[in-house]
Amino acid sequence: MRVVVPFAAHEPKTRLAPVLDADERLAFAQEMLLDVRSAIRGCGHRPTVLSTGPLETDADVRVDDRDLTTAVNAVLEDHEDQVVAIVMADLPLVTERTLQKLFDTEGDVVLAPGRGGGTNAFVARIPEFEVDYHGASIRDHRQRAEAANASVNEVDSFRLATDIDEPADLVEVVLHADGRAADWLADRGFELVTDDEKRLDLCRPA
Amino acid sequence: MRVVVPFAAHEPKTRLAPVLDADERLAFAQEMLLDVRSAIRGCGHRPTVLSTGPLETDADVRVDDRDLTTAVNAVLEDHEDQVVAIVMADLPLVTERTLQKLFDTEGDVVLAPGRGGGTNAFVARIPEFEVDYHGASIRDHRQRAEAANASVNEVDSFRLATDIDEPADLVEVVLHADGRAADWLADRGFELVTDDEKRLDLCRPA
Repeated sequence: MRVVVPFAAHEPKTRLAPVLDADERLAFAQEMLLDVRSAIRGCGHRPTVLSTGPLETDADVRVDDRDLTTAVNAVLEDHEDQVVAIVMADLPLVTERTLQKLFDTEGDVVLAPGRGGGTNAFVARIPEFEVDYHGASIRDHRQRAEAANASVNEVDSFRLATDIDEPADLVEVVLHADGRAADWLADRGFELVTDDEKRLDLCRPA
Repeated sequence: MRVVVPFAAHEPKTRLAPVLDADERLAFAQEMLLDVRSAIRGCGHRPTVLSTGPLETDADVRVDDRDLTTAVNAVLEDHEDQVVAIVMADLPLVTERTLQKLFDTEGDVVLAPGRGGGTNAFVARIPEFEVDYHGASIRDHRQRAEAANASVNEVDSFRLATDIDEPADLVEVVLHADGRAADWLADRGFELVTDDEKRLDLCRPA
C-alpha cells in the first residue's frame, strides 16, 4: 500500500492566526505531520509526504506545488496498479490503531469523513477513483465512487474526523492526543478553560 | 442493560436559535430523540427517556427536572446492580451499529467522547461511577473512573462524537444521517452551500 500525506508547506493553518503567529503555525503543522507519519509507520508503512514546498525532515518528500486536488489525483494516476491511501497531515488525534482500522476496512474505496463535510483520509483500491477536495468532498467522493461502480465503505472515527483548522479544534488535541502536537501546545502553556456555555476553550498565558 | 436517554424538554437546543425558532427547536430535538431511541431499540434494548418534563411520546419516560448531572447520578444510584448506559438525545448520526460498538466494548466504564470535551454516551458496569457534565466532562470522567480503580475504555466514533448544538452542526446531519432528524431538515428546505473557505454551511429558503 502506498501511503501519501499531503502537506501545505507555505503558510499552513492560517485559520489558527488568532492564537498562533506564522512561525508557530508552521511549527505546529509540522508537529502534526510528524504525529501522522509516526502512526502510519506504526502500521508498517513508509509514508510519502506530498508537500507544496521543500521540507526539513527525514521523511520521503515529493514536492508538488499544485493545488491539493490536482496533486492527489496525480498521485492516484502514478500508482494505478497499487492500493493508495491518502491521509491528511492535520490529524494529530490519529493513532496506529485508528489508521489500521482505515487500512483494514474492505471496499474498493474506503472514506474517512472529516467534520464539516471533508474527507480526511481514504483508501483507493481501484484506478478509476479521483478526488475533488472542494466543497462537500465527502459527498462528492461517495458519488464518484458509486459512479465508478466501486464498493464504498466509510470508517466511523472521531480521531480521523478531527482535523485541526481553528482555535477551538486545539481543545481536541489537548484532550485526546498525546504525541508531538499535544506536547508542543503544552510546552507553550496552553490550558483548558471553560466558558459560560460549558464549552471548552484554550487559554494561553499572556 | 438499562439504557437511559436524557432529554431537555424545556426550551431545548437554544444555540440553534439563529436558524430555528423555539417551536422548531423543540420539534427538531424530539426528532433527534426518536432517532437515538430507534437505534437503541435496534440493539434490542428498551430505552427510558429521562426528561426534564412530560413528553408526548410512546417512549418509557421518567421525569426528573433536576440538572443533568444530578438526574443521571440518581439513575446510576437506582440501578447499582445493573449495567447502565447513558446516551445523549442529540446524536442523530448514531446508528444501531454505532451503539452496538459502544455496548460491546469491554471495560468497567466505557466512554464515548463528544466534540469539545463532552461525554456523549457511556456504559457503567460498576456502581461507584458518578458523572459530572460540567466543563471538560470527558477528562473528569476518565479521572473518576481511574479513581474508582475501574478499567476504562473509549469508543472512537465520529457518529457518537457529533452532538448537534449549533447551526454548523446541522451540516453533519444532512451529510451523514438518514433518519427522522435528517428528513425534518430536508422537509424544511435546508440545503448545503459552500462558503469561500470551502467550509460548508446550511442554507434555508427565505
